[in-house]
Amino acid sequence: MNALLPNALPVVDRDLLQADFDALSAITEPGVPWTRRSFTPMFLKGRDYLARRFVEEGLAVRIDTAGNLVGRWQGTASDAPTLMTGSHSDTVPSGGRFDGIAGVLSGLAAIRALRLAGHQPRHPIELVDFLAEEPSEWGLSCIGSRGMAGALTPDHFALRGPADERLDDAIARMGGDPQQIAAAKRSDIAAFVEIHIEQGPVLEARDIPLGVVSGIAGIARVRLRLEGAAAHAGTAPMIMRADAGLAMARLMLALRNAACAQIDRGHFTATIGVLRLEPNGANVVPGAAEAIVDIRAENDAAMGDYLSNMETLATSAAEAEGCRVAALDILSRTFAVTCDPYLQSTLADAARAHGLATLSLASGAGHDAAFVARIAPAAMIFVPSRGGLSHAPDEWTDTQAIAQAADVLALTLATLDAYPPRAAA
Amino acid sequence: MNALLPNALPVVDRDLLQADFDALSAITEPGVPWTRRSFTPMFLKGRDYLARRFVEEGLAVRIDTAGNLVGRWQGTASDAPTLMTGSHSDTVPSGGRFDGIAGVLSGLAAIRALRLAGHQPRHPIELVDFLAEEPSEWGLSCIGSRGMAGALTPDHFALRGPADERLDDAIARMGGDPQQIAAAKRSDIAAFVEIHIEQGPVLEARDIPLGVVSGIAGIARVRLRLEGAAAHAGTAPMIMRADAGLAMARLMLALRNAACAQIDRGHFTATIGVLRLEPNGANVVPGAAEAIVDIRAENDAAMGDYLSNMETLATSAAEAEGCRVAALDILSRTFAVTCDPYLQSTLADAARAHGLATLSLASGAGHDAAFVARIAPAAMIFVPSRGGLSHAPDEWTDTQAIAQAADVLALTLATLDAYPPRAAA
Repeated sequence: MNALLPNALPVVDRDLLQADFDALSAITEPGVPWTRRSFTPMFLKGRDYLARRFVEEGLAVRIDTAGNLVGRWQGTASDAPTLMTGSHSDTVPSGGRFDGIAGVLSGLAAIRALRLAGHQPRHPIELVDFLAEEPSEWGLSCIGSRGMAGALTPDHFALRGPADERLDDAIARMGGDPQQIAAAKRSDIAAFVEIHIEQGPVLEARDIPLGVVSGIAGIARVRLRLEGAAAHAGTAPMIMRADAGLAMARLMLALRNAACAQIDRGHFTATIGVLRLEPNGANVVPGAAEAIVDIRAENDAAMGDYLSNMETLATSAAEAEGCRVAALDILSRTFAVTCDPYLQSTLADAARAHGLATLSLASGAGHDAAFVARIAPAAMIFVPSRGGLSHAPDEWTDTQAIAQAADVLALTLATLDAYPPRAAA
Repeated sequence: MNALLPNALPVVDRDLLQADFDALSAITEPGVPWTRRSFTPMFLKGRDYLARRFVEEGLAVRIDTAGNLVGRWQGTASDAPTLMTGSHSDTVPSGGRFDGIAGVLSGLAAIRALRLAGHQPRHPIELVDFLAEEPSEWGLSCIGSRGMAGALTPDHFALRGPADERLDDAIARMGGDPQQIAAAKRSDIAAFVEIHIEQGPVLEARDIPLGVVSGIAGIARVRLRLEGAAAHAGTAPMIMRADAGLAMARLMLALRNAACAQIDRGHFTATIGVLRLEPNGANVVPGAAEAIVDIRAENDAAMGDYLSNMETLATSAAEAEGCRVAALDILSRTFAVTCDPYLQSTLADAARAHGLATLSLASGAGHDAAFVARIAPAAMIFVPSRGGLSHAPDEWTDTQAIAQAADVLALTLATLDAYPPRAAA
């Protein structure tokens, strides 16, 4: 062990971590499984619990102007930049017990372990519960981390939610101060590390306890509309049809094959989860078919190539059925985020010190870390999700596995306190 | 010309036929295109028009106990069986101006032409406006022709429609007498001939003015449900998915290919017009896909073979994507009806006498004639539909083409009056 690091590996309190999970996940809307939607009274009840626990662990608590709950452990060096960890406490409707809070509670456990180990950080260490990471009723996700990255705009503030409430009013209701949103933007973060459940099947399938995230995939959404000719299902002969449903069936298979062909270029997925036939009558040959394609790529060039090729694939599928491509609209596109290499290797080293194997893997899901990465070195640790499930009541991750990740986080924070990223550069 | 037939070919009055079309199609719900739903006040308004016109053309008008409007031209032979023609005056919601009324108005025009030509039939000739041929708000179609065929059951009568009205009460409201439904069943019909628009593209594509219907296809409806595993669209790698949408895409193409392989066995179609992914979220790999397959076959054996083969096709498509067949339910099945060969040849001869080419073709749509065929020799004449369209505001058939069909119908009725099917046997 290096003299700058703790003498013994800090280890988090398993029982206390389990108690925090039990208490916070139990703060849920009655009658629906595991629901704590951002901006609701139930969300504020969860935050009350967190704020109390932050204080119990010696953190100074505040709400920043973007509505993030921040607990701060002041460092000994007055001018040192901040080491940050955290995640989010809101959930999707009828979600699970781990998505989000795993990162907040394990951050809390790691900080407690460092304190009890007698660690006195040079850098301030902050633990953040980001506001509204999941898609909110205002149609926006990652609201708090966008604010911290300086990416909340007047257009966002004007979004309307339940009871026609403006988003800025809702943020104010959470304790934020949208008038002073610029103050939420941080330029003092030396490193950000987020623990999150994997939400996918890879770690479980490979039986590896920790994932070190290499990057967060860019996401594109494309609306496809193929048009043929509606016709009577009984009277239109098979060879005189322009069946838009069959054209879409061809295209679905072609888009999948094209996605699989990107396998050597990093994490890449393409999914048609939304599909609609028109007029959707049992006795009518579909005159049109619409779908939304969700595409995720760790490699922006692979995403670009795929998007460029879609029109060719769509035209080919449509024409094979006598149909045409009526729309191919890129509804949205974000670019991939690369996790900081120094943070990745620090995380892997800390895991090795704890005797834990790691797998380098990309995140196909979006996370607050993707926004924080715009203003600071950022990285993530994934913990296995049973069956790859998330955003569902059956979502499950062993608290023991989360505790191991928290151990790694504690050592990582201590390491970064001694050797912050700038020093490594 | 045979001595038993008219000296000159009877020819219908084009202007009067056009006037009838204009007047009856204008009786439509305000604000929606061409809608005269069975059992509504607007439907009764249409029937008032028809009853008045029936009387003007010398017919004795009655409503039978099944609610059919019947106009009768008494024959000279007191014991001769009935020659019947007709179709229906109800429409689908937002339908067209020809489906149904083409058969009623051309029957009226043919009877007038025979009368004006001095024809005095031996057999009674009846013109019928069948009640509720289109699927009604009670979930049943061909209500009047079912009644005439003795196929209306107590289960049908108990069906509930708008305002929870029982079907038998609704039939009574139309002037029928459900208590005496047995009286609607006919055993005195020597021949039934129905003129209808084709509702398909074949006659127009072949540029042939008249279709002589060889048979009416049997119809099966099959519910298919394929199940895989819902997963996060971003985090589930392409090679670790069980995407039920892709399984359904494979199956759609396989079912179409299997339908095309039946091409040598008469009219055969298979259509997936209804499709639903679950949970139908843009960022979720579909965990299930449901579809309704509509299958129509002129050849019952071909239908049987196809239905038997569906499970193999479904299993193969599902397993290729790691999914399974959760349901393959035959929701309904009717058998094919063969049109009477003597009536078919009589129709073709009459067309030839008028210098009109005919094409023998099957009907993929259901018609009142399919029910009347249970109790009497039945046949149909099809008139070309522009673009094959029907059940839509743009449905169009030239009145001139309908008038030609009515000419053929007039000669056919005269021929059958002289040489009824039994005499031909």
